[in-house]
Amino acid sequence: MVGVGLVGGSFAWGAKQRGLAREVIGVEVDPASSRRAVEQGVVDAMASAAEGVRGADVVVLAVPVGRLESVAREIAPFTTNATVVTDVGSVKAPVVERLEPLFARFVGGHPMAGGERSGVGSASAALFDGARCVLTPTPRTDQRALDVVERLWAGLGAAVVKLSPAAHDELVAAVSHVPHVAAAALVNAAAAAADGRALSLAAGGFRDTTRIASGAPDLWRDICLMNREPVLAMLKSYLKEVEGVRDAIERGDGGALFDALSRARAARDRMPGGEA
Amino acid sequence: MVGVGLVGGSFAWGAKQRGLAREVIGVEVDPASSRRAVEQGVVDAMASAAEGVRGADVVVLAVPVGRLESVAREIAPFTTNATVVTDVGSVKAPVVERLEPLFARFVGGHPMAGGERSGVGSASAALFDGARCVLTPTPRTDQRALDVVERLWAGLGAAVVKLSPAAHDELVAAVSHVPHVAAAALVNAAAAAADGRALSLAAGGFRDTTRIASGAPDLWRDICLMNREPVLAMLKSYLKEVEGVRDAIERGDGGALFDALSRARAARDRMPGGEA
Repeated sequence: MVGVGLVGGSFAWGAKQRGLAREVIGVEVDPASSRRAVEQGVVDAMASAAEGVRGADVVVLAVPVGRLESVAREIAPFTTNATVVTDVGSVKAPVVERLEPLFARFVGGHPMAGGERSGVGSASAALFDGARCVLTPTPRTDQRALDVVERLWAGLGAAVVKLSPAAHDELVAAVSHVPHVAAAALVNAAAAAADGRALSLAAGGFRDTTRIASGAPDLWRDICLMNREPVLAMLKSYLKEVEGVRDAIERGDGGALFDALSRARAARDRMPGGEA
Repeated sequence: MVGVGLVGGSFAWGAKQRGLAREVIGVEVDPASSRRAVEQGVVDAMASAAEGVRGADVVVLAVPVGRLESVAREIAPFTTNATVVTDVGSVKAPVVERLEPLFARFVGGHPMAGGERSGVGSASAALFDGARCVLTPTPRTDQRALDVVERLWAGLGAAVVKLSPAAHDELVAAVSHVPHVAAAALVNAAAAAADGRALSLAAGGFRDTTRIASGAPDLWRDICLMNREPVLAMLKSYLKEVEGVRDAIERGDGGALFDALSRARAARDRMPGGEA
């Protein structure tokens, strides 16, 4: 496990508790996270990148997307043709393109869980229970490596979905990256409204709507920049939707407004767990 | 209590349980809600508008904002110079402007609680516990009537905040109405993305961000149209924020992107309960 933060820590801990691996070794540059991972029992032991990766059957890269490529290059010399390498990055096309050539058996992955928290202190062995995990095989992907990674995620309780890297990126632009941008913009616009008093009176609805805006700015900056084209395309359709509603309000068109709000409610209520 | 839905039902129930009124009489046009209110013990009894309002010390109008004026006109003949009348509508300037002249002692109000649920079946005697309730006195407001209404909300556990009707409307445009429009637009844009598969893979963050989009479309249509100017002004600054982020992504400006995301996180974390 390279990177023992929220996602890496939860993966390691879950794999340990469920007996999915003989031994779970953590590799982590941050000394505090490293110490905490051992104290919490998230991993069996910590090691250097060389020690941790050498002899590992499966290497999971769970570092922020902006650091994935450099970490992958750092550990590549310690892998063999038999080592299965996978990642948990929120963007897939550029990651797969850069990492796939570095390893004999690479599988791109992205668990749809975690949210705005971060750090091993928020890790949970049950984080992926009931979550979806997207794996993004390509024509170059080794089938047995894919099976190994799929079994690990299934063992952690996740439902595995296979998509092309590009389809994944379009999808997360829609349900994760643009919602993040929208939430951050809402907070910034509201913070400036009503002489700065608006946020102090916000109710639960606003807190829910903007929860993801509490995510780590550096991580989300890298995600938006790496997933540039899908995010820009999605922002375009999002802005068009908002402008459509604005225009309806401007001309007092209750019918168009009702239609937009009804479509949204119906679509949301069809989502898995959407009524909640 | 005129209107025994989520807000009216919760107010009535809370007032009953906490002994804030000798008797709580409900008035409700919907027979199913009326029956349920009695069965749940939300009110002491149901009555016609004439019977319910005649002799009441305080009349709370808890009907959807779009029906407030017609209901107020309907009950006005049964009030006296002593009757304190208040409402719970989500928009205040147009409501206060239209309702204040109809009653001797009117106080505009809006509890910041409720969210996307509706109906007496979702009512809770504790709904307003810890919530904020905005009261919007004007130069015409009777001080004793204001005190009576303030004591009722305080008795229900709400923290009362006094604002002018216009300040209230600007504020809720920022933290409630525009977030609703943004959430609905997000769902509609995402529903059309990735060949319609995006929503089926959405994780908890998206569900939180769009929860308010499950609110009643007719209610929110009326709110947006009644609060037209503040909502349009807020949508303008919101669109500017989103476009600013889009432009930063477009030109690969990580610094500007980091700045926008950091400002949002800092502002959100300063909110009461914002870290949650």
